[in-house]
Amino acid sequence: MEGLIFKVLRSFLVLTWFLVPFHASLVVSAKRSTYIVHMDKSAMPKAFSSHHMWYSSTVDAVKSVSFDSLRNGPKFVYSYDNVLHGFSALLSEDELEALKKSPGFLSAYTDKLVTTDTTHTYNFLSLNPTNGLWPASDFGKDVIVGVIDTGVWPESPSYKDDGMTPIPSKWKGTCEAGQDFNSSLCNLKLIGARYFNKGLVAANPKIVISMNSTRDTFGHGTHTSSTVAGNYVEDASFFGYASGTARGIAPRARVAMYKVSWPEGAYTSDIIAGIDQAVADGVDVISISMGLNFIPLYEDPLAIASFGAMEKGVMFSCSAGNNGPSLGTLHNGIPWTMTVAAGTVDRFLAGTVTLGNGMTITGWTTFPARAVVEDLPLIYSPTIAGCNSSDLLSSAHGIVICDNFNAFYNHENISRSTVPATIFFSDDPEITESTTFPDPGVIISTKYQEDVIKYALNGVKPTASITFQQTILGANPAPVVADYSSRGPAPSYPNILKPDVMAPGTLVLAAWVPTSPVATIGDKIRLSSDFSLATGTSMACPHASGVAALLKGAHPEWSPAAIRSAIMTTASTLDNTQSPIKDMGFNYDIASPLAMGAGHINPNAALDPGLIYDATAQDYISLLCTMNLTRSQIASIVRSTDYSCLNASSDLNYPSFIALYNNGSTEVLNKIFERTVTNVGDGPATYKAIVTAPRGSVVEVNPQTLAFQEKYDRQTYSLTIRYTSDNSAKVSFGSITWSDFGGKHVVRSPIVVSPITTVWA
Amino acid sequence: MEGLIFKVLRSFLVLTWFLVPFHASLVVSAKRSTYIVHMDKSAMPKAFSSHHMWYSSTVDAVKSVSFDSLRNGPKFVYSYDNVLHGFSALLSEDELEALKKSPGFLSAYTDKLVTTDTTHTYNFLSLNPTNGLWPASDFGKDVIVGVIDTGVWPESPSYKDDGMTPIPSKWKGTCEAGQDFNSSLCNLKLIGARYFNKGLVAANPKIVISMNSTRDTFGHGTHTSSTVAGNYVEDASFFGYASGTARGIAPRARVAMYKVSWPEGAYTSDIIAGIDQAVADGVDVISISMGLNFIPLYEDPLAIASFGAMEKGVMFSCSAGNNGPSLGTLHNGIPWTMTVAAGTVDRFLAGTVTLGNGMTITGWTTFPARAVVEDLPLIYSPTIAGCNSSDLLSSAHGIVICDNFNAFYNHENISRSTVPATIFFSDDPEITESTTFPDPGVIISTKYQEDVIKYALNGVKPTASITFQQTILGANPAPVVADYSSRGPAPSYPNILKPDVMAPGTLVLAAWVPTSPVATIGDKIRLSSDFSLATGTSMACPHASGVAALLKGAHPEWSPAAIRSAIMTTASTLDNTQSPIKDMGFNYDIASPLAMGAGHINPNAALDPGLIYDATAQDYISLLCTMNLTRSQIASIVRSTDYSCLNASSDLNYPSFIALYNNGSTEVLNKIFERTVTNVGDGPATYKAIVTAPRGSVVEVNPQTLAFQEKYDRQTYSLTIRYTSDNSAKVSFGSITWSDFGGKHVVRSPIVVSPITTVWA
Repeated sequence: MEGLIFKVLRSFLVLTWFLVPFHASLVVSAKRSTYIVHMDKSAMPKAFSSHHMWYSSTVDAVKSVSFDSLRNGPKFVYSYDNVLHGFSALLSEDELEALKKSPGFLSAYTDKLVTTDTTHTYNFLSLNPTNGLWPASDFGKDVIVGVIDTGVWPESPSYKDDGMTPIPSKWKGTCEAGQDFNSSLCNLKLIGARYFNKGLVAANPKIVISMNSTRDTFGHGTHTSSTVAGNYVEDASFFGYASGTARGIAPRARVAMYKVSWPEGAYTSDIIAGIDQAVADGVDVISISMGLNFIPLYEDPLAIASFGAMEKGVMFSCSAGNNGPSLGTLHNGIPWTMTVAAGTVDRFLAGTVTLGNGMTITGWTTFPARAVVEDLPLIYSPTIAGCNSSDLLSSAHGIVICDNFNAFYNHENISRSTVPATIFFSDDPEITESTTFPDPGVIISTKYQEDVIKYALNGVKPTASITFQQTILGANPAPVVADYSSRGPAPSYPNILKPDVMAPGTLVLAAWVPTSPVATIGDKIRLSSDFSLATGTSMACPHASGVAALLKGAHPEWSPAAIRSAIMTTASTLDNTQSPIKDMGFNYDIASPLAMGAGHINPNAALDPGLIYDATAQDYISLLCTMNLTRSQIASIVRSTDYSCLNASSDLNYPSFIALYNNGSTEVLNKIFERTVTNVGDGPATYKAIVTAPRGSVVEVNPQTLAFQEKYDRQTYSLTIRYTSDNSAKVSFGSITWSDFGGKHVVRSPIVVSPITTVWA
Repeated sequence: MEGLIFKVLRSFLVLTWFLVPFHASLVVSAKRSTYIVHMDKSAMPKAFSSHHMWYSSTVDAVKSVSFDSLRNGPKFVYSYDNVLHGFSALLSEDELEALKKSPGFLSAYTDKLVTTDTTHTYNFLSLNPTNGLWPASDFGKDVIVGVIDTGVWPESPSYKDDGMTPIPSKWKGTCEAGQDFNSSLCNLKLIGARYFNKGLVAANPKIVISMNSTRDTFGHGTHTSSTVAGNYVEDASFFGYASGTARGIAPRARVAMYKVSWPEGAYTSDIIAGIDQAVADGVDVISISMGLNFIPLYEDPLAIASFGAMEKGVMFSCSAGNNGPSLGTLHNGIPWTMTVAAGTVDRFLAGTVTLGNGMTITGWTTFPARAVVEDLPLIYSPTIAGCNSSDLLSSAHGIVICDNFNAFYNHENISRSTVPATIFFSDDPEITESTTFPDPGVIISTKYQEDVIKYALNGVKPTASITFQQTILGANPAPVVADYSSRGPAPSYPNILKPDVMAPGTLVLAAWVPTSPVATIGDKIRLSSDFSLATGTSMACPHASGVAALLKGAHPEWSPAAIRSAIMTTASTLDNTQSPIKDMGFNYDIASPLAMGAGHINPNAALDPGLIYDATAQDYISLLCTMNLTRSQIASIVRSTDYSCLNASSDLNYPSFIALYNNGSTEVLNKIFERTVTNVGDGPATYKAIVTAPRGSVVEVNPQTLAFQEKYDRQTYSLTIRYTSDNSAKVSFGSITWSDFGGKHVVRSPIVVSPITTVWA
């Protein structure tokens, strides 16, 4: 999972869930480790009645190699059967070596501790009940979204099942009763709940699981799952901010929760088990807001498990990570998934300062209570304005103007003083990514600093009032790419442009766990809420997953690649000022596809994309064949050694283009792509290509016109990128747009030319 | 108005609105004072076209006596025409003397600064949509309640007019545009809004009125008017406490607000002007939660104005005051009004402490936020437990047990320390009258003190958690008479038993002004809310006014006396444990009628009281004739010198009985009352008397059976109280109950024998 879940302001960045010291104390205690073991299913001797029997017998067979020093023998953890053929088991090194000699053994690697990655957003995405994707999909009715996360708070009003229809017969999932999670808590909205911690327990045999059930004790899984498919909840807000009727992107879709991430740690063996079960249970979409850094595809549990999901027609949507803005930081760069970047929302949480002279200034505040700060003296004094001495501050009887922004982050002296409110100045957009605001006050733009201080110094009995809990919609520009969102190229496989798309990720309102504090007043009072504002690609992913669920509802026949293509080729590259989307992490330059993929998701357009770039499981295998992997590494992903590399090709039929050059090389880059598009519009259509070449490149398209006779007709074209520039480590980008007559369908793909960056292997 | 509005715990009692130092700075600046002048309307010379012309000419005529020292002449303030004949004017003493010689002059007295006096309560009063008074009155549809108070916050959701019908044609009121109060703010719910401050301005010519309109800046008028007739508001609460759908007692009645009370002061001349206008506008019920202490009836603006209202059939409901529990402290002891005492509600606002050993204790808390206090060390140390040292407290890293309850009231050291929560012990019921709770924590019963401290001292790593925002309904016993509620006998006229009835007054939830803070966190953060919990007879009065409005809706033909009679004779004397209602102010002894009148209002029973004790304006005049008043004093009240004292009688046909004796006298008290009851049940009925004589008294009733042939038949009976006890300053009480066959109608009147107390004259 991402190293960041809430973006709690810069200085707090490291204090995220999986990096807290608590986990460090959970050291693997024995000389045995848990291994994920891939097996060639076709090699199973006929004597075994099931794969599980075979796998456990295989583990038993290596017991002979165990010695006295390891009191207990190897221990079987999970058998996997859907997205991975194999098992996980607690093995010593000797036992592992013995296992490698077992028939059907493909590969094995150690189980890993995973690190982890929010609702006016439906409106920001133009979803509405009267036309477009919502009514076309019946709001996602009967689509099942499996969320792989930290569990769910089943009593949250977002999981009420008002308006939900009976559960479809294909559903094989269940509600697993566990600690404080009675199976009666599942309903027509929350149809499944399972939890997986055998890997966690295997690695930490003496562990006491604090909440041994699918119940969420953190909030992350409750937030992501309610973002995808939460029911309507009136009067939701974060302490009066962002108030309104909350709803998921697919408000009539169903949620099945697979808890694989625990306060005590998250292990790859558990994650695979969760995804394996979700596919077996019959989910339509998997949404997973976590990922692993520095891991090659063939050992990445998400890459492995998502391949099986894709083969079974399950859409797999995952987060890009929060390690931006540097290039090459993206995880989940998996060719057969949809990888989602995060953008901002057009919402500004505000307080208004009214000076005694009538001047009114709106600033940023999320102080979590309806504070009354009215007609108090306004004080500016150079000795106090550092706002870093509780005693000096307490000598001021009124609203204090602070000219030291560090004191906003290190606020203990303000909290402990008797100052009723403070005014800070900052233009840093990152302040609008966090809800941390423990003392009454407001942050206003530095452009007002001189006027405010002048009034405080020279006004006759200067006074000010501050009002709180304001929510301003339509703030612009929005979206912009969030600074924290991880950037491509994908180090796990850079030749497919990742991320795929961008979705709202900054300060998203969704359900939270009411026992988990989300705000602080002063330096000691911690507050909880049924809804919280959270920031990260973790929050972006479920938005895209929700749109995928809606598309699955509207077009049940579409493959995962088709759904991804529809979302990508219709994504918007313009913000709400009708200018190109900017990148907060690169000084508000125009955002590159390495930051936002094809652009910002545009659900209603995705309903009717015109053309689709489809791909089959064999297409992905043909791609894997070119990746310089061993046969068993490929088999680990495709779950069979019986695969064909006859059509090996790195030219996947993907709705985006990336050409990589060696930085400093004098070679001219000349890359040819071939693409096949399927007409999913009704009836005949003719499309013409419009190309915007990346700076320094020439792009040729052939043919430039594609004529389709009827629905599902296919046409193929080639696209050549010739990069002739100075290879000076610059990223350039453009696009190819196929547009039909009258511009009813505009099918856009980004084109990127980028230097090669670090690749994980 | 009452000296208490919020009961903010004992130590804050004096800090009520009208006692804050701010008012003291508003000294009458000139040698002129405002006088209320009563005139004999029949003496108006025919030359004048209107009374107003006559009055202003009368004031002009005395200008000749003004001298240079008073630069301006006398100033006319108001002319009154409905509930008072006369005017108010700013006059010097010489001018007043001259005025006294004017034709038609009756009496004059100086304008006075007035001092001032909430919703599961509808449920506590058993009001329900399916049967009883709500459906019978159509929820008060078309009844207009004039509220004389501090104004109204028109944007409060309680004044939305969803579900309201067109305004009845009889309505002559208006929405007066003023500062920040556009006339468009009135609607089908809030049909009228007027403000009156000429008296305030006359007394303080240089005053700048901070909100010169009917807009409420305090909250009191918004609270009282929404209690009477607020519309339905979902999800109302006081910071998560007492949450639910708020509604007034008469949710379909209309409100007309007459703002007469100002942050700058409240003057009798303005109050009379407000009531005068309300009657002229056509209100059905007047609700006024204020009153004057130490003033005889003939100078009491409420007594004077309410007489005119009563004559015009307007029900006048007023508060008893908050000067209890001592006897003889009641104001508004006006024979022609309904005077309302305050009781508690069956609601307990709670927090739960869970100790690490599993012990769970529910205590009192209204900490105004959803604080998270979970699994923290529980600390008891004699050096810290005084909880009066910020430094000592900050040395404790966990929940601190405080054994010094003073530290709850003087909490600055706790607020400024780093202690996350405190636990106090108290059994004082007064803690449940206030919402002041600035630091996270809970007050639990002293019966748990030993166990909690023992665990903190001896437990292995003792811990505790505290949860907040709990609301417990059905707390008992309830109601009990609130300690603060003013007690009879009425010093303005003790021979009529006052108060008349009791209604919910403690921690009533109703609308509030969002700019006026209602809670505090720590020692500096003040919070506001759309709804507040307030305590006082100010909150009890609008409950009774609401019931009166419902009865007016159900029985439009009933006189104010009939409505009062129905409410009184059906009032309950039992609490929710089916025991006699107790008195919190007298150590939980059985409450006397001097505390609660006939008992706790019982709206559904009042709909069908069986018998009515009616009274006409002439009956009240006959009573006034016995009060030892001058002709002009009586004329001041009845607005005419042309009244008859031929039938002078102190035996008013009142639904209660009080016999007063001279303390220490050896005389045997022998008092005979005559009463006439009207059958308002359908058809013939026979009632039998059941008497419970006050201790030390013999009570005789003659006849003991009353037979009625048809509806509206009247029957007369006599009741004799012979008090033969030791006249030792004790109050004794009993009742007479007329019950028909089968007990369908039970018509109960309280009987009190009391020593004479101080009388205002």
